[in-house]
Amino acid sequence: MDEKTGTVRVYCAQFNPVVGDIKGNFEKMVNHIISAAEMGSDIVAFPELALTGYPPEDLLLKPAFIEENIAYLAKIKEFSADITVIAGFVNRASGIYNSAAVISNKKIAAVYNKQYLPDYSVFDEERYFCKGTENFVFKMGNISFGVNICEDIFYSPEPVRAQAIAGGAELIINLSASPYYEGKIHESEKILFTRAVENRVNILYVNLVGGQDELVFDGNSMLIDEKGEILCRAKPFKEDFFIYDIPSESVNSARLQDAKYINQQNELRPERYSVKLIEISPVKKHVGVHKRAEIVKKPGQSAEGAADTQNKNSVCGSKAPIANTDNYKKLISCAEEEIFEALVLGTRDYAKKNGFSRVVLGLSGGLDSALVAVIASFAVGSRNVTGVIMPSIYSSKGSIDDSLALSEKTGIGTIIIPISSLYSEYLESLKDNLKTSGINITKENLQARIRGNILMSLSNEHGWLVLTTGNKSEISVGYCTLYGDMAGGFSPIKDIYKTFIYRICNFLNKKYANIIPDEIIIKAPSAELKPGQTDQDRLPPYEVLDKILKAYIEDEKDYREIVRSGLPENIIKNIINMVDFNEYKIRQVAPGIKITPRAFSRDRRYPITNKFRLL
Amino acid sequence: MDEKTGTVRVYCAQFNPVVGDIKGNFEKMVNHIISAAEMGSDIVAFPELALTGYPPEDLLLKPAFIEENIAYLAKIKEFSADITVIAGFVNRASGIYNSAAVISNKKIAAVYNKQYLPDYSVFDEERYFCKGTENFVFKMGNISFGVNICEDIFYSPEPVRAQAIAGGAELIINLSASPYYEGKIHESEKILFTRAVENRVNILYVNLVGGQDELVFDGNSMLIDEKGEILCRAKPFKEDFFIYDIPSESVNSARLQDAKYINQQNELRPERYSVKLIEISPVKKHVGVHKRAEIVKKPGQSAEGAADTQNKNSVCGSKAPIANTDNYKKLISCAEEEIFEALVLGTRDYAKKNGFSRVVLGLSGGLDSALVAVIASFAVGSRNVTGVIMPSIYSSKGSIDDSLALSEKTGIGTIIIPISSLYSEYLESLKDNLKTSGINITKENLQARIRGNILMSLSNEHGWLVLTTGNKSEISVGYCTLYGDMAGGFSPIKDIYKTFIYRICNFLNKKYANIIPDEIIIKAPSAELKPGQTDQDRLPPYEVLDKILKAYIEDEKDYREIVRSGLPENIIKNIINMVDFNEYKIRQVAPGIKITPRAFSRDRRYPITNKFRLL
Repeated sequence: MDEKTGTVRVYCAQFNPVVGDIKGNFEKMVNHIISAAEMGSDIVAFPELALTGYPPEDLLLKPAFIEENIAYLAKIKEFSADITVIAGFVNRASGIYNSAAVISNKKIAAVYNKQYLPDYSVFDEERYFCKGTENFVFKMGNISFGVNICEDIFYSPEPVRAQAIAGGAELIINLSASPYYEGKIHESEKILFTRAVENRVNILYVNLVGGQDELVFDGNSMLIDEKGEILCRAKPFKEDFFIYDIPSESVNSARLQDAKYINQQNELRPERYSVKLIEISPVKKHVGVHKRAEIVKKPGQSAEGAADTQNKNSVCGSKAPIANTDNYKKLISCAEEEIFEALVLGTRDYAKKNGFSRVVLGLSGGLDSALVAVIASFAVGSRNVTGVIMPSIYSSKGSIDDSLALSEKTGIGTIIIPISSLYSEYLESLKDNLKTSGINITKENLQARIRGNILMSLSNEHGWLVLTTGNKSEISVGYCTLYGDMAGGFSPIKDIYKTFIYRICNFLNKKYANIIPDEIIIKAPSAELKPGQTDQDRLPPYEVLDKILKAYIEDEKDYREIVRSGLPENIIKNIINMVDFNEYKIRQVAPGIKITPRAFSRDRRYPITNKFRLL
Repeated sequence: MDEKTGTVRVYCAQFNPVVGDIKGNFEKMVNHIISAAEMGSDIVAFPELALTGYPPEDLLLKPAFIEENIAYLAKIKEFSADITVIAGFVNRASGIYNSAAVISNKKIAAVYNKQYLPDYSVFDEERYFCKGTENFVFKMGNISFGVNICEDIFYSPEPVRAQAIAGGAELIINLSASPYYEGKIHESEKILFTRAVENRVNILYVNLVGGQDELVFDGNSMLIDEKGEILCRAKPFKEDFFIYDIPSESVNSARLQDAKYINQQNELRPERYSVKLIEISPVKKHVGVHKRAEIVKKPGQSAEGAADTQNKNSVCGSKAPIANTDNYKKLISCAEEEIFEALVLGTRDYAKKNGFSRVVLGLSGGLDSALVAVIASFAVGSRNVTGVIMPSIYSSKGSIDDSLALSEKTGIGTIIIPISSLYSEYLESLKDNLKTSGINITKENLQARIRGNILMSLSNEHGWLVLTTGNKSEISVGYCTLYGDMAGGFSPIKDIYKTFIYRICNFLNKKYANIIPDEIIIKAPSAELKPGQTDQDRLPPYEVLDKILKAYIEDEKDYREIVRSGLPENIIKNIINMVDFNEYKIRQVAPGIKITPRAFSRDRRYPITNKFRLL
């Protein structure tokens, strides 16, 4: 703390943990703590459950897991001699809690337990955690701060109000593990704005970053002042940090002048909002305010000392010069870019954290496999990507040529393995058990499954991760083959509708010099499993299909409501039936990245056996 | 109600609904109501969420679903002119509730909202429902009764005590949807015993029956008196009903003489346990007490009038003559039989409720496929089962002969499709991309995947449901092939350890004249994917493996604790690593029946990306 001004410097550690790797997460945290102290920070704050990673899911039912996390939390104390550490961990009392330890002077000053436990969408926190009830305000020199966790800040009365208004905190540090979905970042900004203004308080929102199975945490940590202005923000979709000297005087000045604040203060009788005050003695004085140029240490370095090239840190020492939205727009220009970044991070982390350095995918010459190839190239490097071209008797010439052109543009490797003779051999083996000689669904699926087998064989032989290429539009209606094109370990675009696939590809072609050959974008989508086939033989145009799917899946509209949108009734009826009927396929789809507010898998928990039909 | 004695007759409708089929469930309920009234019952009680089926999962997020369930609940009123109906449904107020409507005289007398919402294991009720707070006691002639729902009865203070002690109810009607797991039935009996005795109250436990995706509801509805004795019970694993004249005098007599009850009564000051009293005017007098022989109407008949042959109803008019455990043992002789019944019901209902009349499975000549064939025969009838024998160059002669012998014993059909030429064709297609010429995991998996493709082709061609044959021991450690032997729509034995598979098969052979050929039971387990292979080349003996798996998966023990059991350390370490590593496979396994207290899928929510290793 600066003894002259009483200014407190915070360090926001936007951190990418690995679930379960408590020791590894601890080591990365220690690196941040040391760097933060060297930069003269008084406080270093980590995201929610930084020590265990988020979400730990049923690891939380293992006593040994809880124990190890508590043992490593205790080790953090050693590093708190000249800095206050705020660390997310699992606290254990009569039950377990999703908690933040405030560690200072080699002691745990207090443990705050999360009060609002999300149990919707992908969240299951009520399954594991007890609810906290106690609020603290920490006094450090001239400033008081409160700590709470993620969901806690989404509710108006407590605990933010208890800490800020009843307790008088000028700074709220909110540790979050808030997963990405399209549009979420702007929603979060609005809520943080509201909470900062209504409580006349600075809010430091420290969010997790990185991919964990189906979730991507977007980072986007930020510091917001009592007027709701964003003072500083960390990069989206990247490990990052920032430091900032908290301007506490302006909070106090704003509070004196804000009649609404004073009204609330009068109404929040302290006996109803009990807040425990804890003094943290200032442990360090600044040599001087660090300037941007003085900071050389990069905390993104791993415990082994290897620099993480994904990591470019922001350091703000002063107020961000431009307004919030513009500020974010400088980092991410549009929804297409934002989603693409999420897909790349999710794919990279799934591969990396699960020990895969190389990936393989089938290249059909179509748009979906082209996009997945580009995502893979950005995620693991194009030389670590193999595209397999598997033409059948029904494949167009373009399917090979366009795939080879894509390979040239992206720099990925290719293998060509024709499937015609395998297909004939299957027909021969099955001939006594097939009803018709013509092409039908059985034979279409067979081709897809031969390709699935080939990809899986390459995966088994070389240790490559198979990426599947299905999009949300086709998976929703079951326009895909179980164990065929659905075979694979990770499904990057499974939550992206086909119409949005076009938008992302067009964006990529603008930004990256037509990385996807035009032929791939302009051709009619086709599975090429029978002569002259296109997707629209069985499906409505994708613009129509995607509108129905969004209404039904994301907005939970029923048939009657969707009919009011003016789309053809028989098509709507048909699509709803297909979605309901195909839940059994959806249940076996590979994990992929949640992008929409309602993804499949843990986000949308649907019965397979289900006769609800409101038609 | 019998006007002379004031005795109230209850009808317990142990009912098998279909999730989402609100209209169909309503029609079945009406049949029960009419029958119950004809049998002179005063009250007919249905299980938890009978109208919607349980668990409706994210259907509960659809406003149209809630609306339809409320519309059909209103229609039940018409049938309540001469009987009181207690029906599980989804109530809607500011939020939604898991509720029981008490319907009498064509009116809804009250709606009880469930107070304890389970959010562990397979349950997600906090995701959807608000918690109820209000307790009712219904006065009907000489008797008062309370109503609560499933989990509510597992907690000691409220609401049972509020209703029975503060409110004076002599009968508690508990509507349940309690899924089966091994040993659960005896646990439930003990809890119901305790709750009946400590509150000196009759308890009517009305449980759901039937299969719903991965869950089997076991039925086992029962009426317990204030001494904890079971007066009457419905059959396990079958649709059933019983009627009983509630002996209320003995409750009042027991209460007067029980000092513990009086102590509780004094402590439970009514102002703390507010209970609303509702009078239900007696609507009907008995012509006389029905005797067993008088009852001819079978409410198991479907709305269309077709008798359900699975349904044999119990009718008790008098106290069950023998003690609880013996009583159940008369219906189910041992754990092996109990689990077999659960597997048959789960498989039958998955097939039937999803519109499959026929099933197909691969027959390897081994024990797992033999057991699944028997389960399938009992579930859908042996003439609706096709076993496919798919020998490779590594298959033993026994694999064909033993499968044919099994087919003869069980009466299922068989098809033989050799896979050798397909296998050669794959090796030829892949030859430039395989590293070794010898047999390896790639080639082992390839054989399994060829078989998976053949089964799926038969499924696509004929509309058969593919049953997979993996057991819990091999799935846990990943000793199975994604898209190979794991390919299929339903996985009946996925939650049964291999050592228990032996026990079930031995039981079946005793009960059903050696239905599984001895050769299949005595041979060493082998995947037969390379020469001379047995499972124990890669796995420890199944007795050891299963002990480790149970300790790690079900008991959440860590490595150090399991080591204390005296099993070899390196084996334990290896098995734990295999389980953690194979979560990605487990995520894509077909749905199957929960049998253990901790099944995979929605019961055990594990991260794939997970570096927790306490070794």
